[in-house]
Amino acid sequence: MALRPALRTAEILAVGSELLSPYRTDTNSLHLTEKLEDLGIELRGKTIVGDETAEIEAWIRAALTRVDLIVVTGGLGPTEDDVTREAVAAALDVEMSEDPEIVASIEARFARRQMPMPAINRRQAQVPSGAEPLANPNGTAPGLWIERGDQAIVLLPGPPREMRAMFASAVFPRLQHRSGGHPLRRRVIKTTGWPESRVDEVAAPIYGAFARAPIPISTTILASPGQIELHLTAAGDEGGAADSVLELAVRALTASLSAIVFSTDGRSLEEVVGHLLRDRGLRIGAAESCTGGLALGRMTDVPGSSRWVTGGIVAYDNRVKIDQLGVRQTLLDEHGAVSEPVARAMAEGICERLNCDVGIGVTGIAGPEGGTPEKPVGTVVIAVAIAGDTSCRTFQFIGDRQMVRTQAVQAALEMVRRRLI
Amino acid sequence: MALRPALRTAEILAVGSELLSPYRTDTNSLHLTEKLEDLGIELRGKTIVGDETAEIEAWIRAALTRVDLIVVTGGLGPTEDDVTREAVAAALDVEMSEDPEIVASIEARFARRQMPMPAINRRQAQVPSGAEPLANPNGTAPGLWIERGDQAIVLLPGPPREMRAMFASAVFPRLQHRSGGHPLRRRVIKTTGWPESRVDEVAAPIYGAFARAPIPISTTILASPGQIELHLTAAGDEGGAADSVLELAVRALTASLSAIVFSTDGRSLEEVVGHLLRDRGLRIGAAESCTGGLALGRMTDVPGSSRWVTGGIVAYDNRVKIDQLGVRQTLLDEHGAVSEPVARAMAEGICERLNCDVGIGVTGIAGPEGGTPEKPVGTVVIAVAIAGDTSCRTFQFIGDRQMVRTQAVQAALEMVRRRLI
Repeated sequence: MALRPALRTAEILAVGSELLSPYRTDTNSLHLTEKLEDLGIELRGKTIVGDETAEIEAWIRAALTRVDLIVVTGGLGPTEDDVTREAVAAALDVEMSEDPEIVASIEARFARRQMPMPAINRRQAQVPSGAEPLANPNGTAPGLWIERGDQAIVLLPGPPREMRAMFASAVFPRLQHRSGGHPLRRRVIKTTGWPESRVDEVAAPIYGAFARAPIPISTTILASPGQIELHLTAAGDEGGAADSVLELAVRALTASLSAIVFSTDGRSLEEVVGHLLRDRGLRIGAAESCTGGLALGRMTDVPGSSRWVTGGIVAYDNRVKIDQLGVRQTLLDEHGAVSEPVARAMAEGICERLNCDVGIGVTGIAGPEGGTPEKPVGTVVIAVAIAGDTSCRTFQFIGDRQMVRTQAVQAALEMVRRRLI
Repeated sequence: MALRPALRTAEILAVGSELLSPYRTDTNSLHLTEKLEDLGIELRGKTIVGDETAEIEAWIRAALTRVDLIVVTGGLGPTEDDVTREAVAAALDVEMSEDPEIVASIEARFARRQMPMPAINRRQAQVPSGAEPLANPNGTAPGLWIERGDQAIVLLPGPPREMRAMFASAVFPRLQHRSGGHPLRRRVIKTTGWPESRVDEVAAPIYGAFARAPIPISTTILASPGQIELHLTAAGDEGGAADSVLELAVRALTASLSAIVFSTDGRSLEEVVGHLLRDRGLRIGAAESCTGGLALGRMTDVPGSSRWVTGGIVAYDNRVKIDQLGVRQTLLDEHGAVSEPVARAMAEGICERLNCDVGIGVTGIAGPEGGTPEKPVGTVVIAVAIAGDTSCRTFQFIGDRQMVRTQAVQAALEMVRRRLI
């Protein structure tokens, strides 16, 4: 077989009027973007249009003048609204014809459920002539693979579960043979504790140098409350030179950012903390006030966390701090609930009451109310007690209630991590 | 002034190469979609392209053949990457010229911070001739309003905080004068407890009738774990016939779904529960096992929740159930930790220990491990104790660990709500 020209560039079209409402957005394209990057195919654009034959047809015609590969999701169902097949046939100036293989597979699917195939599903077998059906293990809508000269058009169903399975089983292998570029290799460095500007100030000279290397690395910084991530990518094959260069870059960046890097292998902060606790045979408890259970909620999100989480007490009311955690009334009176002595007493109290090895105490003002000039909204005091030794820090977080709480949980987990390493 | 033709249809373009990565997506367009609906302007499509002048120019040229209004976000910064202004000028075949008003406003912004304006920012004053600048209260990038015949092009900055403020202050008022259609009026009915198919079975005949009424209502069903929402919209002006018809539809649907409707005014389930507790002067506590603090975390997400949340105990370890909640060892031995007697003892124990009026007890198997043939993953037992009267239910939730936990919290809050109404 002669070598076919490579598919180097792509656009994605998501079809569905519901995707033009304020309630839903196209999430399939993020998954497809990652897979196309893995294949080394450059994504040039993403578009959403409604269930309108003429608009889809016009978009396909235009995209065929721009890129090698077109991926369309949605509009493959059996109803009148599902017009992707017709629109593609019109854009390619080909007839529609019934594909007996598709009829048989849809009939078989209904037969397995002891149901006759509804007449309406026969529409799904009407496809542009020359289209090759792609099996749908999770639904009735078959996908279609269409070649036109050196270009390719892939039609995938809209439901993410169906789309992903079909892409993995039928589309990815075909594209592996046809993609011309190198796949993208990825590494992620996760940090917490510094703002984005400070992380970038330290990291920029390093990733800047790697960006100009023979195998260039490109770096994206992603910021969320309490967490800054560096996403590094380089083009190359698995286990090849790109992986080695990425490893070098990760090491160089981690050395400069060492104080704040908690993960270079994709793990979340709570997973890292959990592994450290398990390795050391320690169990943790938390006494939470302003975070109201979110620190415990995040730790117990990790499967198997019952091996290292004992439990905790949410002491929203001061009475609970006194009765359940043994915080002395005099401490509350003298220093206020949001203070280092109270946070320390909470951390130590939870260790004692729950008989656990590591204790977290969090108390603060999440807002929007409750701030004072001395202790404004965003003031959070966090203590970590381990084996009779308690450390404590006062933070001043910025943002709304949710952001303050998220950052407080992140800071508490990070304080535990630093105590354990 | 002569009446200008209305702007009835629109497309949105988001510019930014980072939006074509797997890590980020365009979120501005959901906000813009809602605002355009509010104005009665029909959205025909959304597109994302990278920072490439030629691609933006070609897209603008094509969109001018399709719709009345084009909204572009991103690419208005001061760097070489920011090419939206040039691309739009090219698409309209107009020259670029420096706008002295923009220079002055950027200089003033830097002056307020006692900084000279960097030379690079002068690029932001280079705009397509005839463009009208739109003030940016939250950043340096001015927006632009451009008219071409009866069509309009709006350029907005990419950062959501800047885009939203500018749209509200400068774009919305202009569009109000130019939009031809009726704005969309909205209502939301939030339910919990039934699966989507059952909600739809009951609701479809009712919203179907309203869809065929003289002022038609369109209905969208949004499903998330433990919550099904009906979003109703109708075209019309505020306080007019559309509002009356929507009110009728909300009443008809609420009557049929009454058992499961918790909100028709936008409030979340935790807000509804909080209001019920406050109105009755009651305070709540929770004893959580498999949900690990998430129920307390959700309740304390509500600002002012310290007025109705006392606190709680996360009893991940059975020892904590015994020592802190007073669950008897014999109950655990006889029935297992995931059982109605234990859930009841947890709910009653939290009321007693924390001296609160309403107690929640949640115990279950969130998975992925820990399931048995009798108590598979997804089994969750929830008890609610109020004034010595405890109700209890065993649920079988479907989905992964996170979905099971989310549904369990939702079910617990709903059980409290039903006990209080």
